[in-house]
Amino acid sequence: MIKVGIIGATGYAGNELVRLLLGHKEAKVVWYGSRSYIDKKYSEVYQNMFEIVDDVCMDDNMEELAKQVDVIFTATPQGLCASLVTEDILKQTKIIDLSADFRIKDVSVYEKWYGIEHKSPQFIEEAVYGLCEINREDIKGKRLIANPGCYTTCSILTIYPLVKEGLIDTDSIIIDAKSGTSGAGRGAKVANLFCEVNENIKAYGVTTHRHTPEIEEQLGYAAGKDIKLMFTPHLVPMNRGILVTSYAKLVKDVTYEEVKAVYDKYYKNEKFVRVLEKDVCPETRWVEGSNYVDVNFKIDERTGHIVMMGALDNVVKGAAGQAVQNMNLMFGLDETMGLLQAPMFP
Amino acid sequence: MIKVGIIGATGYAGNELVRLLLGHKEAKVVWYGSRSYIDKKYSEVYQNMFEIVDDVCMDDNMEELAKQVDVIFTATPQGLCASLVTEDILKQTKIIDLSADFRIKDVSVYEKWYGIEHKSPQFIEEAVYGLCEINREDIKGKRLIANPGCYTTCSILTIYPLVKEGLIDTDSIIIDAKSGTSGAGRGAKVANLFCEVNENIKAYGVTTHRHTPEIEEQLGYAAGKDIKLMFTPHLVPMNRGILVTSYAKLVKDVTYEEVKAVYDKYYKNEKFVRVLEKDVCPETRWVEGSNYVDVNFKIDERTGHIVMMGALDNVVKGAAGQAVQNMNLMFGLDETMGLLQAPMFP
Amino acid sequence: MIKVGIIGATGYAGNELVRLLLGHKEAKVVWYGSRSYIDKKYSEVYQNMFEIVDDVCMDDNMEELAKQVDVIFTATPQGLCASLVTEDILKQTKIIDLSADFRIKDVSVYEKWYGIEHKSPQFIEEAVYGLCEINREDIKGKRLIANPGCYTTCSILTIYPLVKEGLIDTDSIIIDAKSGTSGAGRGAKVANLFCEVNENIKAYGVTTHRHTPEIEEQLGYAAGKDIKLMFTPHLVPMNRGILVTSYAKLVKDVTYEEVKAVYDKYYKNEKFVRVLEKDVCPETRWVEGSNYVDVNFKIDERTGHIVMMGALDNVVKGAAGQAVQNMNLMFGLDETMGLLQAPMFP
Amino acid sequence: MIKVGIIGATGYAGNELVRLLLGHKEAKVVWYGSRSYIDKKYSEVYQNMFEIVDDVCMDDNMEELAKQVDVIFTATPQGLCASLVTEDILKQTKIIDLSADFRIKDVSVYEKWYGIEHKSPQFIEEAVYGLCEINREDIKGKRLIANPGCYTTCSILTIYPLVKEGLIDTDSIIIDAKSGTSGAGRGAKVANLFCEVNENIKAYGVTTHRHTPEIEEQLGYAAGKDIKLMFTPHLVPMNRGILVTSYAKLVKDVTYEEVKAVYDKYYKNEKFVRVLEKDVCPETRWVEGSNYVDVNFKIDERTGHIVMMGALDNVVKGAAGQAVQNMNLMFGLDETMGLLQAPMFP
Repeated sequence: MIKVGIIGATGYAGNELVRLLLGHKEAKVVWYGSRSYIDKKYSEVYQNMFEIVDDVCMDDNMEELAKQVDVIFTATPQGLCASLVTEDILKQTKIIDLSADFRIKDVSVYEKWYGIEHKSPQFIEEAVYGLCEINREDIKGKRLIANPGCYTTCSILTIYPLVKEGLIDTDSIIIDAKSGTSGAGRGAKVANLFCEVNENIKAYGVTTHRHTPEIEEQLGYAAGKDIKLMFTPHLVPMNRGILVTSYAKLVKDVTYEEVKAVYDKYYKNEKFVRVLEKDVCPETRWVEGSNYVDVNFKIDERTGHIVMMGALDNVVKGAAGQAVQNMNLMFGLDETMGLLQAPMFP
Repeated sequence: MIKVGIIGATGYAGNELVRLLLGHKEAKVVWYGSRSYIDKKYSEVYQNMFEIVDDVCMDDNMEELAKQVDVIFTATPQGLCASLVTEDILKQTKIIDLSADFRIKDVSVYEKWYGIEHKSPQFIEEAVYGLCEINREDIKGKRLIANPGCYTTCSILTIYPLVKEGLIDTDSIIIDAKSGTSGAGRGAKVANLFCEVNENIKAYGVTTHRHTPEIEEQLGYAAGKDIKLMFTPHLVPMNRGILVTSYAKLVKDVTYEEVKAVYDKYYKNEKFVRVLEKDVCPETRWVEGSNYVDVNFKIDERTGHIVMMGALDNVVKGAAGQAVQNMNLMFGLDETMGLLQAPMFP
Repeated sequence: MIKVGIIGATGYAGNELVRLLLGHKEAKVVWYGSRSYIDKKYSEVYQNMFEIVDDVCMDDNMEELAKQVDVIFTATPQGLCASLVTEDILKQTKIIDLSADFRIKDVSVYEKWYGIEHKSPQFIEEAVYGLCEINREDIKGKRLIANPGCYTTCSILTIYPLVKEGLIDTDSIIIDAKSGTSGAGRGAKVANLFCEVNENIKAYGVTTHRHTPEIEEQLGYAAGKDIKLMFTPHLVPMNRGILVTSYAKLVKDVTYEEVKAVYDKYYKNEKFVRVLEKDVCPETRWVEGSNYVDVNFKIDERTGHIVMMGALDNVVKGAAGQAVQNMNLMFGLDETMGLLQAPMFP
Repeated sequence: MIKVGIIGATGYAGNELVRLLLGHKEAKVVWYGSRSYIDKKYSEVYQNMFEIVDDVCMDDNMEELAKQVDVIFTATPQGLCASLVTEDILKQTKIIDLSADFRIKDVSVYEKWYGIEHKSPQFIEEAVYGLCEINREDIKGKRLIANPGCYTTCSILTIYPLVKEGLIDTDSIIIDAKSGTSGAGRGAKVANLFCEVNENIKAYGVTTHRHTPEIEEQLGYAAGKDIKLMFTPHLVPMNRGILVTSYAKLVKDVTYEEVKAVYDKYYKNEKFVRVLEKDVCPETRWVEGSNYVDVNFKIDERTGHIVMMGALDNVVKGAAGQAVQNMNLMFGLDETMGLLQAPMFP
């Protein structure tokens, strides 16, 4: 049985890790870290866990935690994991970091987009970008995983096959993304109050959102060259879900069948990526509560562009689910263990 | 492996049965009955099941079905199950009826409140009212179960202990219930369109809702006498969840501890009923996606009344989850099998 | 032109006062008071007012304000108005207080339920309870009005005629109320975040909500005796609207027509109270954005009870609209001035 | 007083016309046409109008109607207006058609995208495209106005200045639009049920939506050449509002101030178009219930693109409000008459 510690267990991603790991046969959470709720019963913070989780919240002492657990999930704000991790800790335990600290290989890019100094750049090289469908083999057995961002996971998986196969002009990629409000976290801010979000849609972080360089870097690897693209996130009045609608210029005439074959080449054997049938658009409701990503595309012959669409649950495949998937790979377990719940509707 | 057939598999309760049974180790759906979608792939009707369920929808031929399966769930409009069931069918298979056809023992009460003739009253006596926490022993091994209504399950479990112990005046019970919109079903009606339900709350069926006599009958058994009560349902702009706020006059002075002891007497060992801690009110979000019912109460010394509150997920404990719980009991399985998912939040 | 000052202009009720007064021919806001946003442009706080309101937010200096305006609306937390008001101020200007400070005549009741000391009890006697439909004549020409609470307005108007005419047992009144989230204000609290409120319904303040004594006092005047009743508020995932479902025992057999005649007696000539047609239940969507209160009832012959229902927009008739209605009465204007917008749907 | 007839008065746009015209000093609805609800009281179909509108619904006899009214609004499905209008009718009354029948000058384009035969192409040439801010002078005094589509109004007003001034590459325009559900109409369809729309976002009509050629035609006039662009609409779980996020390649280096000057050139004197302050993104909540369009832009120096954003209320400026604005222009009234309500929030 894998002993798990969570730092940041009382955020939305942390609560989802708890939920998913309750259904995992080979792992058990033994440390519910939460700076805000130390000594409070976890089930008082998340009443859904009443009579299910009896533990109280612990501090975020990573050194002590490293002695007690086999893997630490850090579901914390940017910078925290990088400020706590040490070689000594990594010798004792594995870390899956749900923040952005180890996602971007070029530390200057990280520091520019995030506006903070990186406190442990010495581990960046070692960290593996935990997008399981693409970096599966690299993840196995590793001790430090950078769990991808929610928008990033959806964007990359939606666009990756066409970039990899050179079907689209990588200078023309535009990603218009829409997210449910759980992505904004559980902090008490006026902008995230019910009455401010409900009955509204807005773009935010236009041209400046931090997931931009992360997408560019990963798609750049697929293209074999640097990519600059546009990424615009939007806030949608719903709890969960991310929808990516992305656009690019096709570099040559292609048929539906040819593009479908490209998607199938990469995803036919992927349990968690579903390439939908012709003309069926991904919708967030169909993946809610699950680790699935639904993708599809539509060729626009009038303009020579292609629309690539993807949908996932930002709290599962966009955060906690992918983290568990990474844990499974790191520990040599079946990659799907604990992640096979069907999406819940409505 | 129990072979399961579902008649009405494309309603919301039907889809939830499919979802729950996919996670059940000892049962497997082999017949997806749907009069509206015959020959259509189930996953085209419910895209969440894409690449998970490959079957196509079948008709609702119960005779044929009875030959093929061990248990039939009927998640259909009132009257359908009663019109199809025969002794011959019941000799071959078990039936768990999610409609109201076999819930009410007095056929004249059924016919008055539902406004339809009962087509097979000969099975009413035999049918067991499948409220597992109360009728557990009667359910075991039976062949025909009347699965309780959603409002009913929540109302009865919330009030039952105090009626059973004689703590409240049974002439004074008022139940004010609130439900998410999935309870209204998937039929295309103007009243259930997004723009009609969203940003609105309304009462409906005031003094005439069909769950009234069902609650009265069951609480009457607990009281050992006839009960008449008020029941008012409301439609809430959310997908899932029922909250019951009920009121009654206390027949004597009681302390918090005394009432808590009464709730604990009946529910302390019940897996799916959680008596919350003092002053914590049940909320539908904390049970979403799960088979739990959260209950609690508050004594109002000023008026000599008690407020009894309960929350459940109408699609799970209020329909499909309780149906699976009944199946487990009927077949001698662990009652909680396939039903242990933690509630999902947010 | 009446010069208006608002203290608390950046709360939801304050913003609604601004919206309503923009459409008022005889009044103009000249002071947008907001302790939190002093010196910030009002339209930066409420972007709906961009290019409509050019003013910046001012402090809440009531003495200075009294010199400049004809009437002050205080849309502020409990206790603030009472701590600022003086005889000197009231000699210079009128005050309409949207908080509870002057609603309850018995200062000990106020202090008990609100848990704060009343700082200017000397004005309680003078203050008129501004429920226009009931206290119209008393309001005219007065200088200090206690604007009723949102739940209170809806509850009293729904029940008042039957209490006044002695048709119901005043010991049996139970009020189950449901409110949109704007009633919780614009403060940044975790409990009011989108993901916490959305897809949820809960009761709160059970047996202890502060609007209870206010309802009891006003209905007590109608009954000519003290009343104790139960009041339970609920939080609904919508922005605006309050629905009251209330129950009471009838003291004698009455017909629909008799009760309808009682409602008509009090409301037939009331512009803002609409007694709906038989069997039509009030719904919050039909009054949204307007000053209307929709009421109706249903007799339950089985139990000898009556269900009385009412719906209003908590930000309009439950707060800012009623405040404007009071202003109109105080200044001798047409009571409906600035309040005749039809409800907006959807 | 202008006598108004509405054909299609019981759709969402029809109800909004009624609401707006109730607040219009110079116009009065005298004919509430509704094929589905003939002889039913209008206020029974839209309970918000109880005690406000006493009329019953009439048929859609345009010939008879033409004799009685000064202007007819047709808020009806595509094809209906074209099938009813005659020279004789237009000699007696003016028509403002809220459907697409007279929006597109090339009848073959209309018939291709809408899949129906145009029944009165002889009036297409005469009809004026009623986008008031652009075609103001042409609208005055005319008898047949094609009221623009909701997505179209938002898209064109957002992009128009930059196309007109030649700042963007017209081959690179991508419009990603998001709409509230009222845009889908009041028809009873499973896809628009509350539980299907709530907690979901999806794209639809990808590469094929009928507003595409309408946007292309109008922006083509501004560019002085044919334009082909991509347009993708999305359905958002909210009642009202459209947000357009559009992208294009800049044809030269420009500063914020230069682009701002271009927007101001066209919109500084426009009452209903608000160019927001730097870095403020349009949000649908800030225009709800009003005739405003909020627009803004962001230059992305990294990619040489510009993001152009716009928000409006689809039922007001996207339908009924713009129709009233057109009526005002046609009849020589102040263009803003009846349209000056401030947006309502929350």
